[in-house]
Amino acid sequence: MGRVTERRRVIRIRDGVASTRPDTLVAEEPMEIRLGGKPLAITMRTPGDDFALAAGFLVSEGVLARADELAHIVYCAGATTPDPSPAGEAGSGEGMNSYNVVDVRLADGVPVPDITLERNVYTTSSCGLCGKASLDAVRTRTRWPLDAGPGAPVRVTPATLAALPDRLRAAQRVFERTGGLHAAALFTVDGDLLDIREDVGRHNAVDKIIGRALQEGRLPLSSCVLMVSGRASFELAQKAVMAGIPVLAAVSAPSSLAVDLAAETGLTLIGFLRGSSMNVYAGEHRVAVPGAAG
Amino acid sequence: MGRVTERRRVIRIRDGVASTRPDTLVAEEPMEIRLGGKPLAITMRTPGDDFALAAGFLVSEGVLARADELAHIVYCAGATTPDPSPAGEAGSGEGMNSYNVVDVRLADGVPVPDITLERNVYTTSSCGLCGKASLDAVRTRTRWPLDAGPGAPVRVTPATLAALPDRLRAAQRVFERTGGLHAAALFTVDGDLLDIREDVGRHNAVDKIIGRALQEGRLPLSSCVLMVSGRASFELAQKAVMAGIPVLAAVSAPSSLAVDLAAETGLTLIGFLRGSSMNVYAGEHRVAVPGAAG
Repeated sequence: MGRVTERRRVIRIRDGVASTRPDTLVAEEPMEIRLGGKPLAITMRTPGDDFALAAGFLVSEGVLARADELAHIVYCAGATTPDPSPAGEAGSGEGMNSYNVVDVRLADGVPVPDITLERNVYTTSSCGLCGKASLDAVRTRTRWPLDAGPGAPVRVTPATLAALPDRLRAAQRVFERTGGLHAAALFTVDGDLLDIREDVGRHNAVDKIIGRALQEGRLPLSSCVLMVSGRASFELAQKAVMAGIPVLAAVSAPSSLAVDLAAETGLTLIGFLRGSSMNVYAGEHRVAVPGAAG
Repeated sequence: MGRVTERRRVIRIRDGVASTRPDTLVAEEPMEIRLGGKPLAITMRTPGDDFALAAGFLVSEGVLARADELAHIVYCAGATTPDPSPAGEAGSGEGMNSYNVVDVRLADGVPVPDITLERNVYTTSSCGLCGKASLDAVRTRTRWPLDAGPGAPVRVTPATLAALPDRLRAAQRVFERTGGLHAAALFTVDGDLLDIREDVGRHNAVDKIIGRALQEGRLPLSSCVLMVSGRASFELAQKAVMAGIPVLAAVSAPSSLAVDLAAETGLTLIGFLRGSSMNVYAGEHRVAVPGAAG
């Protein structure tokens, strides 16, 4: 798409002295995800890997779990910018393809989720009204039990985990240019890089990784480690579980609900992964370290 | 509420040696915002300042702009956790108050927004299908032109801006304990701290600041600087504009769409505010520096 970064003029002030120069910014654009032609969600994202983003979003929401459940994904060619006239609705008229609207068609026989119109935010419609309900919703919806694969449970060593942040950063080419991107990367339990995605929204970066894996028939990701550049929220832990990823590692802190979800589903959750130091918040049976069971 | 942080057991691994200890985590819980009893949005947030969060969300969305447009906000006492039985709907039955559902009542005569059911994500329903439409939507919806107040435009010096990150961090008591919180702070153009909020979601921290200002009749915040601990996205720039805040400063990078929105609305947008160095991406007429007009 060639829109991952954009150039803008910037005034740089250093020690009170101003100078003007061009600057590279990370691109941000809205994207609407439609399911069978019906609007489902809008996310602000960095353009690129849009079909993977849509597919991964639907894995995270429990709509898709296998490649053969997905018929196809297309840009809506007729989608145009809304009429700027007063009270203009997003018209059905002709116009340029903005490449910001994608339509996902499910395979025949795959149940279309009941999008409750009364509760407008589908992304979190199953969250219920408290953290416990949120945990239950993920546990009951996932189709990929974390330790069901051959050789389960996987084991990862602290030395392997400690090497991941540097490998993530080394692979972040775009990050070097803008400083404005969240990154997510998929590694084997031996620390080999399988995929990396960057986005203005870290949930998008994770969805792009998971969506690509779905498209290529690689779900569940039962022998992988998902690494994220920032914090570990409930939403990111949910995405890992829905894709069958047994280990989630974050550079920064997890939230309470992310830890609760990990404990409830058996996800290994690592936080504050820095240098040779890390915190294991749940699922320590997958971390090969003396005394970890203590 | 006393739920800003929670304690969990953690295994700390350092140089291959594991030890178990208690750890403090930032609390994360879902909150549903209802408008006149009707579900409008769900956000994952750190409990606390929930009414301010709801009010600020509605300012950001263009529903509220003045204190007298808000009748009241209440926790939904009957709101209970969803029935865990199969196909259970969020019941209307009795139950504990989860303090995770708030209902906002608008004052008589204040128009209730037309929540388009076909487009489920209300938060971004006006984004249209491209960045340009997103900019237009904010520009036409805001009721607080940025330079309309007395003494406009405000002026802020680089020295004042350079002092803000340290003042923000000094005020982040909770951050010291968990490392997991985004922060937003409101300053005068002279650098005096007016308010600070922290949350697992940075958009929530900003909404809490703006909502509190609405409740106290302080909108528009025409002589203030909003400072955020991370990146400056379109969404954060939108919130600043909707509250009439003329200057947004961020520790990290802005996105392309945030810069475009700032240029379109006249918002002063500062990024990479570190030490005595900063980048001015738009609205440089409010930054008092020699040569800034160059």
